[in-house]
Amino acid sequence: MSPSTTDSLAERLVAGDRRALARAITLVESDDPRGWELVREVYPKTGQAAIVGLTGAPGAGKSTLISALTKLRREQGRSVGVLSIDPSSPFTQGALLGDRIRLTEHFLDKEVFIRSMANRGALGGLSEATLQAALLMDAAGRQDIFLETVGVGQAEVDIIDHADTVVLVLMPGSGDSIQALKAGVMEIPDIIVVNKADHPLTETMVREIRGVLSLAPAEGRQIPIVRTEAARGEGVPELSAELDAHREWIEAEGMLSERRRRNLRSEVISICANRLRRDLESRLQTDPEFEALLAEVVERRLDPASAASRVLEDLEG
Amino acid sequence: MSPSTTDSLAERLVAGDRRALARAITLVESDDPRGWELVREVYPKTGQAAIVGLTGAPGAGKSTLISALTKLRREQGRSVGVLSIDPSSPFTQGALLGDRIRLTEHFLDKEVFIRSMANRGALGGLSEATLQAALLMDAAGRQDIFLETVGVGQAEVDIIDHADTVVLVLMPGSGDSIQALKAGVMEIPDIIVVNKADHPLTETMVREIRGVLSLAPAEGRQIPIVRTEAARGEGVPELSAELDAHREWIEAEGMLSERRRRNLRSEVISICANRLRRDLESRLQTDPEFEALLAEVVERRLDPASAASRVLEDLEG
Repeated sequence: MSPSTTDSLAERLVAGDRRALARAITLVESDDPRGWELVREVYPKTGQAAIVGLTGAPGAGKSTLISALTKLRREQGRSVGVLSIDPSSPFTQGALLGDRIRLTEHFLDKEVFIRSMANRGALGGLSEATLQAALLMDAAGRQDIFLETVGVGQAEVDIIDHADTVVLVLMPGSGDSIQALKAGVMEIPDIIVVNKADHPLTETMVREIRGVLSLAPAEGRQIPIVRTEAARGEGVPELSAELDAHREWIEAEGMLSERRRRNLRSEVISICANRLRRDLESRLQTDPEFEALLAEVVERRLDPASAASRVLEDLEG
Repeated sequence: MSPSTTDSLAERLVAGDRRALARAITLVESDDPRGWELVREVYPKTGQAAIVGLTGAPGAGKSTLISALTKLRREQGRSVGVLSIDPSSPFTQGALLGDRIRLTEHFLDKEVFIRSMANRGALGGLSEATLQAALLMDAAGRQDIFLETVGVGQAEVDIIDHADTVVLVLMPGSGDSIQALKAGVMEIPDIIVVNKADHPLTETMVREIRGVLSLAPAEGRQIPIVRTEAARGEGVPELSAELDAHREWIEAEGMLSERRRRNLRSEVISICANRLRRDLESRLQTDPEFEALLAEVVERRLDPASAASRVLEDLEG
């Protein structure tokens, strides 16, 4: 690809061209240097989108919820981007396909751009690639960007830390998530949704959540708990209003720029650290000295930390 | 501390002195160089213990289970070490205290050593410190070491990847964990326990687990599903037998040394990568050039990846 082709890809992307956006994300996802180059070019156009991250256990209904939110946002005349972070295991490839099917009703709408990103086992690289993809959507003029991660742990929350607003989606009976919140395995999100709220245990769960939140420092704002039934669209306007309210609040308090500054700082450091690790791994991949060192570790003649020190000394020397 | 004091600490530790072991783990946990030095010294004595990792959502009953297993192993004349990886959040400090209370019945038994390790937000440092602590217990002659992590995600499984045998503890109704397994968020463990098996939904859950496992590659061994009621000791002898059976199997197939070699390899690389990251962070902490670079990123004049490239160029230059 010649530089002029890249230029025109950037131009088409900023003009909102869907195919250019799809191609750009593919470049980023495959760690192609042209992808990073593109982000560099269009970066000045970013910072306009409202980025919302949604996390929660598989099956909690995040995709259905995002589909319903997308419908509502489109009715309000806003353009939407959806990024699903899709963990793929060696044996359940495509297990989450069902989730994506829930979004098909938007496939023909040019103002809705949906993309799954797979966890390819790159060390922390998925989080990097996700931010780059979100930046590309932002530059392409998407006004609302929904990031979706699957899982119940701090790692999942870290991925959506690029978001301006973090939403935890629970469903009645999803005891593990609430226990994780209670135990502090997961930080308190900005908004909590109890989806499938027609379940008889909904109010029990809401009380449990209130109990957990009452232990958390208030920070001048109560965490809203929104009951939804995403499949029927119920509670979705309320959730949408809470998203707007949170955004207004962080903007008014000057927290949005503070949050973005903090996120960008940790992003730069993470990109550096991942590259250092990747370089290290590729150097050690076929290094006979490292294999000899490792043999000593396996035979219990050299401990892992001392072996690490020697590797680092060799690097510096 | 003079070298001779360290020597005697190592000697006392290898002789099985509990106070020496406690002191040694504290040194490792506080990232004291003397801790690393100690591990270096006693490392040749390690590799004897059977290390079992247990993971699962908070509330699944892991501590009760470990307590019951400890009782049984003690009756068999074996010495036991327990390491609880205890995530602490800024607002629920001590939330897991209740878990530790379940282990108090063993506090007076000198052949049982129980220790909690807190997540201090060190970047990946907890996993490092956990392995070091496990090595210390191993050198101190503990025959069975139980590592306990709280959470439902790959990050939690990674921490107990130092173990020879990985056990996932579920309870009926803990839908999130099984969903995580199904979706491939979490890798298949060596043994699955359904605890609180007096629950009416136990058999439904066992069927669900069988369904998930039927999608997984067999690798020459069926993953056992053990029903327990840890609080009453039920099913614990069966679990104990499955732990032994798994260990025999990996030893017979030559997989134990293969697994340990792989674990030690990734451990050495992780220690290196964490040190590189920590060095980077401390260099950037008060670096005015980095702050200037960051200001450009925040003002959307320089993208995060390009900023990272410049940081790395400066490091090398």
